[in-house]
Amino acid sequence: MQHPGRAPRRRRIRVALGARSYPIELGFDTLDELGAALVKQLAAPAVTRAVLITTPPVARHYAARVARSLKQAGVFVKRITVPDGERSKSLGEAGRLYDRLLAAGADRDTVVVALGGGVVGDLAGFVASTFLRGLRVVQVPTTLLAMADSSIGGKTGVNLKRGKNLVGAFHQPRLVWMDVATLRTLPARHYRAGLAEVVKHAAIRDAKLFRRLERNCAALLARDPGVLLPVLERSCRIKAEIISDDERESGLRRHLNFGHTLGHAVETLAAYRGVLHGEAVAIGMAFAARRSEQLGLCPAADRERLEALLLQMGLPTALPRHPRRSYLRALKADKKMQRARLHFVALCGIGRAVTVPLSPAKLLPPGENDRERERR
Amino acid sequence: MQHPGRAPRRRRIRVALGARSYPIELGFDTLDELGAALVKQLAAPAVTRAVLITTPPVARHYAARVARSLKQAGVFVKRITVPDGERSKSLGEAGRLYDRLLAAGADRDTVVVALGGGVVGDLAGFVASTFLRGLRVVQVPTTLLAMADSSIGGKTGVNLKRGKNLVGAFHQPRLVWMDVATLRTLPARHYRAGLAEVVKHAAIRDAKLFRRLERNCAALLARDPGVLLPVLERSCRIKAEIISDDERESGLRRHLNFGHTLGHAVETLAAYRGVLHGEAVAIGMAFAARRSEQLGLCPAADRERLEALLLQMGLPTALPRHPRRSYLRALKADKKMQRARLHFVALCGIGRAVTVPLSPAKLLPPGENDRERERR
Repeated sequence: MQHPGRAPRRRRIRVALGARSYPIELGFDTLDELGAALVKQLAAPAVTRAVLITTPPVARHYAARVARSLKQAGVFVKRITVPDGERSKSLGEAGRLYDRLLAAGADRDTVVVALGGGVVGDLAGFVASTFLRGLRVVQVPTTLLAMADSSIGGKTGVNLKRGKNLVGAFHQPRLVWMDVATLRTLPARHYRAGLAEVVKHAAIRDAKLFRRLERNCAALLARDPGVLLPVLERSCRIKAEIISDDERESGLRRHLNFGHTLGHAVETLAAYRGVLHGEAVAIGMAFAARRSEQLGLCPAADRERLEALLLQMGLPTALPRHPRRSYLRALKADKKMQRARLHFVALCGIGRAVTVPLSPAKLLPPGENDRERERR
Repeated sequence: MQHPGRAPRRRRIRVALGARSYPIELGFDTLDELGAALVKQLAAPAVTRAVLITTPPVARHYAARVARSLKQAGVFVKRITVPDGERSKSLGEAGRLYDRLLAAGADRDTVVVALGGGVVGDLAGFVASTFLRGLRVVQVPTTLLAMADSSIGGKTGVNLKRGKNLVGAFHQPRLVWMDVATLRTLPARHYRAGLAEVVKHAAIRDAKLFRRLERNCAALLARDPGVLLPVLERSCRIKAEIISDDERESGLRRHLNFGHTLGHAVETLAAYRGVLHGEAVAIGMAFAARRSEQLGLCPAADRERLEALLLQMGLPTALPRHPRRSYLRALKADKKMQRARLHFVALCGIGRAVTVPLSPAKLLPPGENDRERERR
């Protein structure tokens, strides 16, 4: 994985939220520049202390470089590692993190640097949002899923046994730092799962990006930075635009939940084991496209293109085998339920989505699950 | 305790925070009017479901009335009780509340009604701020401490073993409903502890209110509504003004921490047992006044007036006997520590406060603690 010579080394995308605006800095092999950029970006109060929260596998590859970069910029750094995996997104783990922040001497001026995937970003972001009623946080995503999705937009949270992200806060980062060179150490399955969120952005909002994904799928899977960087940049711009328009998810931002309603249920039923978030989203998007077609909202050809692209990327599209009543129970615990209805994000065609209020029973009619079983 | 015939039954104080502004409704025997007022105040989305969070002793006296009032206004109500006492302000209790909110079918449109003292308000407020990334909350304080202080201003949180309110969020209520008739069931010791926060508001900001407290101390202690209502109204207005000016505590709001820095340490060292928050604040204010005098900031006569008023109210003023190093350790865990300094709120005289950055060691010099011991 080498940087393509011609393109600019760093690209900046702005999330426009008034006083809480922040930049996404996207680049290749830029981890060593983080410290200086962070100190420059975060003033008043000046950054003198940081706590680097990460997981053991990420720490092995990148923590020393990030810590060195911060130290060279004059920032005193303490490292805290949390166990890898979705199960770390728990109240118990948050509780342990609070205690460790205290032990590390964190005060209100301390900056939390979340280095890792979506789990670290969500957990560290939630802890930062609630520790001492709020510390500043910088997101340094090292997985494609976190770059394409979870590091942008300020959604933080932990899971409860009954469902994902049921506890959380909106807490925008002060800076998002994406070094796509870190993706070279990402396992292939995790990389593919991250592509699901890129597909999502294209599917709901950008037919041109979708076509680019179809055409460059092999190069993308090979992690060719010359293809990946502009694709990720476009994907991030879509998300940044939506967030800037609707921070709190009262309208347009709901479209970002495309594939997530059923995806979350799939994860809950798997107890967060055996299925990656991006894989669950792929399953959820394929399901949503089929359901959109059944509801007369989406042409069959567009549904087929979405399914084909997901399959080409090596992502799953069939509903895992669980009783329908289990799915319904999981859907009813979804935090987006309002008055017994979910905001189902339907596809109207590649590049266009619409929100439809639907009861869980109508989202998953009795037939669908049976058909799924036959298909497998 | 009877309502004084002449005064208006309800007084409205506005906390001005732009789109997040809200009213404090202060009155006598107004609990039955809460439901209609709540539905009127909270629109978009209209309130159809509420979860009433309270403690067993408060529930015994008032939960049925509040629930009835809500039901009559067309709101479906579920009740949840949490154990009484500061130790309920924990992550564990918050975790149990999340599960019970799920079991109660709470969704994003559900309103949390916190009925009780500061513990219920802080805990329910924190849970509301983080459940599904934020539910609306209405504070219905039934203790003088919660009325005078904790129900106003949006500070919510739970304690960690190492200190008070170390985890939390700013989450403004949509309405604060104070029925001072509920104070008749408050134990005398708790009532007196609540007066400490009223004294605080007078001491930092309003010499006229302070004089009124001195003159009417007996009537206040007798809970005469004709004296209590206007005193509480003035106290709430002071807090509302300060919050409106500085929601996030970057300047003026710090003055509200008068007596709280050492007060929190007193509570931490007592493991939240045996000392009420208002009592700890009284001890902290008396200490702060003495320290202010030593620092040449406060005339002896003003320090004496403060100590005399606290004693007249039956509140403690002497530091509990703990080793100085224990106090210093507790002070160092204070969430307001920034760069090894605390924002010590000093008294400049009755009605005037100032913030002084001070290290814990300078806040509590070796001599002070020894003198305290001799005094006892």
